[in-house]
Amino acid sequence: MSVPALTDLSDQSGDFRVFLGTGILVGVICTLVAVATSGQRPEFTQKLGFLMVTTVWIVACVIGALPLYFSSVKITFAGAFFESMSGLTTTGSTVISGLDSLPRGILLWRSLLQWLGGIGIIGMVLLILPSLQAGGLTLFHMESSDKSDKVLPRVNQLTGGLIAAYVTLTLLCAITYTALGMSFFDATNHAMTTLATGGYSTHDASMGYFDSNPLLIASTVFMVLAALPFVVYVRAFLPRRFQLWRDPQILVFIMICAVLSFAIAVTRRIFNDTPFGEALISSAFNLVSVITTTGYASEDYTLWSNAAIGIFFLAMFLGGCAGSTAGGIKANRLVILFLVVRAGFRKLVRPHAVIRLKYGNDDISDQTIQTVTIFFFLFFGTLLTGTVLLTMFGLDLITAFSGTLTALSNVGPGFGQIIGPAGNFSSLPDSALWVLSAAMLLGRLELVTVLILLFPSVWAD
Amino acid sequence: MSVPALTDLSDQSGDFRVFLGTGILVGVICTLVAVATSGQRPEFTQKLGFLMVTTVWIVACVIGALPLYFSSVKITFAGAFFESMSGLTTTGSTVISGLDSLPRGILLWRSLLQWLGGIGIIGMVLLILPSLQAGGLTLFHMESSDKSDKVLPRVNQLTGGLIAAYVTLTLLCAITYTALGMSFFDATNHAMTTLATGGYSTHDASMGYFDSNPLLIASTVFMVLAALPFVVYVRAFLPRRFQLWRDPQILVFIMICAVLSFAIAVTRRIFNDTPFGEALISSAFNLVSVITTTGYASEDYTLWSNAAIGIFFLAMFLGGCAGSTAGGIKANRLVILFLVVRAGFRKLVRPHAVIRLKYGNDDISDQTIQTVTIFFFLFFGTLLTGTVLLTMFGLDLITAFSGTLTALSNVGPGFGQIIGPAGNFSSLPDSALWVLSAAMLLGRLELVTVLILLFPSVWAD
Repeated sequence: MSVPALTDLSDQSGDFRVFLGTGILVGVICTLVAVATSGQRPEFTQKLGFLMVTTVWIVACVIGALPLYFSSVKITFAGAFFESMSGLTTTGSTVISGLDSLPRGILLWRSLLQWLGGIGIIGMVLLILPSLQAGGLTLFHMESSDKSDKVLPRVNQLTGGLIAAYVTLTLLCAITYTALGMSFFDATNHAMTTLATGGYSTHDASMGYFDSNPLLIASTVFMVLAALPFVVYVRAFLPRRFQLWRDPQILVFIMICAVLSFAIAVTRRIFNDTPFGEALISSAFNLVSVITTTGYASEDYTLWSNAAIGIFFLAMFLGGCAGSTAGGIKANRLVILFLVVRAGFRKLVRPHAVIRLKYGNDDISDQTIQTVTIFFFLFFGTLLTGTVLLTMFGLDLITAFSGTLTALSNVGPGFGQIIGPAGNFSSLPDSALWVLSAAMLLGRLELVTVLILLFPSVWAD
Repeated sequence: MSVPALTDLSDQSGDFRVFLGTGILVGVICTLVAVATSGQRPEFTQKLGFLMVTTVWIVACVIGALPLYFSSVKITFAGAFFESMSGLTTTGSTVISGLDSLPRGILLWRSLLQWLGGIGIIGMVLLILPSLQAGGLTLFHMESSDKSDKVLPRVNQLTGGLIAAYVTLTLLCAITYTALGMSFFDATNHAMTTLATGGYSTHDASMGYFDSNPLLIASTVFMVLAALPFVVYVRAFLPRRFQLWRDPQILVFIMICAVLSFAIAVTRRIFNDTPFGEALISSAFNLVSVITTTGYASEDYTLWSNAAIGIFFLAMFLGGCAGSTAGGIKANRLVILFLVVRAGFRKLVRPHAVIRLKYGNDDISDQTIQTVTIFFFLFFGTLLTGTVLLTMFGLDLITAFSGTLTALSNVGPGFGQIIGPAGNFSSLPDSALWVLSAAMLLGRLELVTVLILLFPSVWAD
């Protein structure tokens, strides 16, 4: 919190006291907790693991919300919690309008939340979640793009490598943004929220503020890089193991980005008479922004055409690669589901054929298929449940459905007049913000981690 | 076709010539096909089976469309085909407005299409589809609510029993409707479309035309009966085997109907100040109409509140029981998916537990789980693909999404101003009607039967 505090101090904004105050408060509480738990070492169980992961995220969101709540920005606590959750889950939905005139410390705090959330989720998916079923079962095992123990011999090295890759890419992105005309402050903020696939901007008009095609292209490239499995970059430090295309989800993801960007550009050529070259740049930027679950917008793409809206809607489900900062269903699950369907079809035509499913070099077990099935069912079940809850709080169907979807996939903007790319979440009631905050947490923690805590038999003994 | 021809003749409508003409045409073609294929007996293979089932449905839809196309109703061939497909798949979406002033022969033809489609799908799911993988694999095996060979010793007896049950229930329904004030003609038509969970009405205002609560209650009961697995009724003829609650989907389905009806009634009490008793009757009728994929409406329920819309939206996914005339995801799949998720959670908490999944008395195999996974993935994949295609033809997101959903689930009405319960499909372009016709066929034939034909390796050898 010291960085935004110093920024505000240098800007002579009164908000520096907020960061200082909450910083001290959090420090005191942490010390108390540390003292209270020292000496005890409870047996680590699966259920304690799920409880801890979920609790840590919620506590982090509360801490993240405090400076926003006590600052000069006028929002309810539900709004501040939503904003903090949206930051740490790298969603990018915002309840704050008038970003351009906010104290720079608050802007930096929002970007920092996303940046820390981004590296947090990579670390969690690769390092913590697999250990939660080290004993045997593997509800997450295949979901990270690679077995972490294969990549680098030791966990510490891997962690160091991931952080180094994340920092390096962020620096590269900031330098590129600065070179292409952003101010140092804007470049820093946008670099952090790009690599986090978060999408918080320092301007209400998002990337549209800069009105620069080179910037859009650069941002598109860095969003794609941020949505690839980060193990790829760590492996890159060890030339012998460099096998970029071994993970099938990478190629599939890039192909989907290319095809959908091209499709949108074609619809704009047809329906809006936009020159194809120009259409391709902004189509690719906004599509990649949605499919990588970043959530920047260079303009209100829902005004382009119904056809464009349809493709953006599809992209909101798909998401990036597993092991990245992106959310959504993710490319590895799409690959596995496609393989399962193909195998099912083949078996129907040739009942006696023996079919082994392989993801890259690894066999796909029945266990893996069940894991993906569970995720898929929970994803659509949560989506429909969230939609019904939001309509209960008075939201129309399109806002409720696209709002739950954008939260669950950690994208950012939804559809419709209220929460579309030109709008924001400030007019929603607090009750709806709590539901959406829950959906963001569920989506970020891959659903199972949180939902298992609601399952009665977890607490039975 | 003789029945509607005679009806029109007695009404002195010129359309009787249409039925007579197409009847003779179809008779001649059938004779020619029979002559051409006599003597040949090609080896029956799986792929030939899928091809035949799909072809038979498409040919039947073309035949059903001919009288509509050549009649005094002014529609394009795409419209006539859509109407016929909507009939035979028991969907109930219509492109015809001004039903009240149509020739009675045409109205009867629409109802007959649904009624024949209803018994057709029950027979197909129970008798034909299982035989398509008699050799080994079972992509449909568990999907019918029971193994057909257990129910009655011989296929002929089962077929006879099913037809008898279907006819008996239709007669009971028609008698009830007449007793509650419908004319003989209206009662006959509505009884046929109720038991088919089809939803075609003889009035633009659908069931709202009669403005009678007793009729709504009776219709609700018969729609629920039509959405139960029909094997239940056949088994009822053999008292020793009467085990109504053995199939878990039945209880789950009835519980869902009750809970959602009650929930809508509560929202109407809160948001619309409707007296609870009255609200419950119309809420239950319209909700059951949607969840059984019938598609009647007693009024425009999308005007009640956003909360009610949310629940109706959810109901459009769920559907009735397998082995009935209803569509949608269906209760048996929901039960299996729930059991898979619960088992996955249990295993995460207790990695060494051995969990056997049972659906009723039967074990759920990994194969079954894959089958359900494939259906679930194809369902949402088709839903999103259809949505994107319809937006390409200029439809807005809510019309495109709810239109594809209502077609795929074989419900009938969608959401939004155009295709909501107060609207119809007449203003959609022909291209959109073809897409929706395809979605209805896909939904009715449980997706796999049709989609497997698009899979290249089916044709590879």
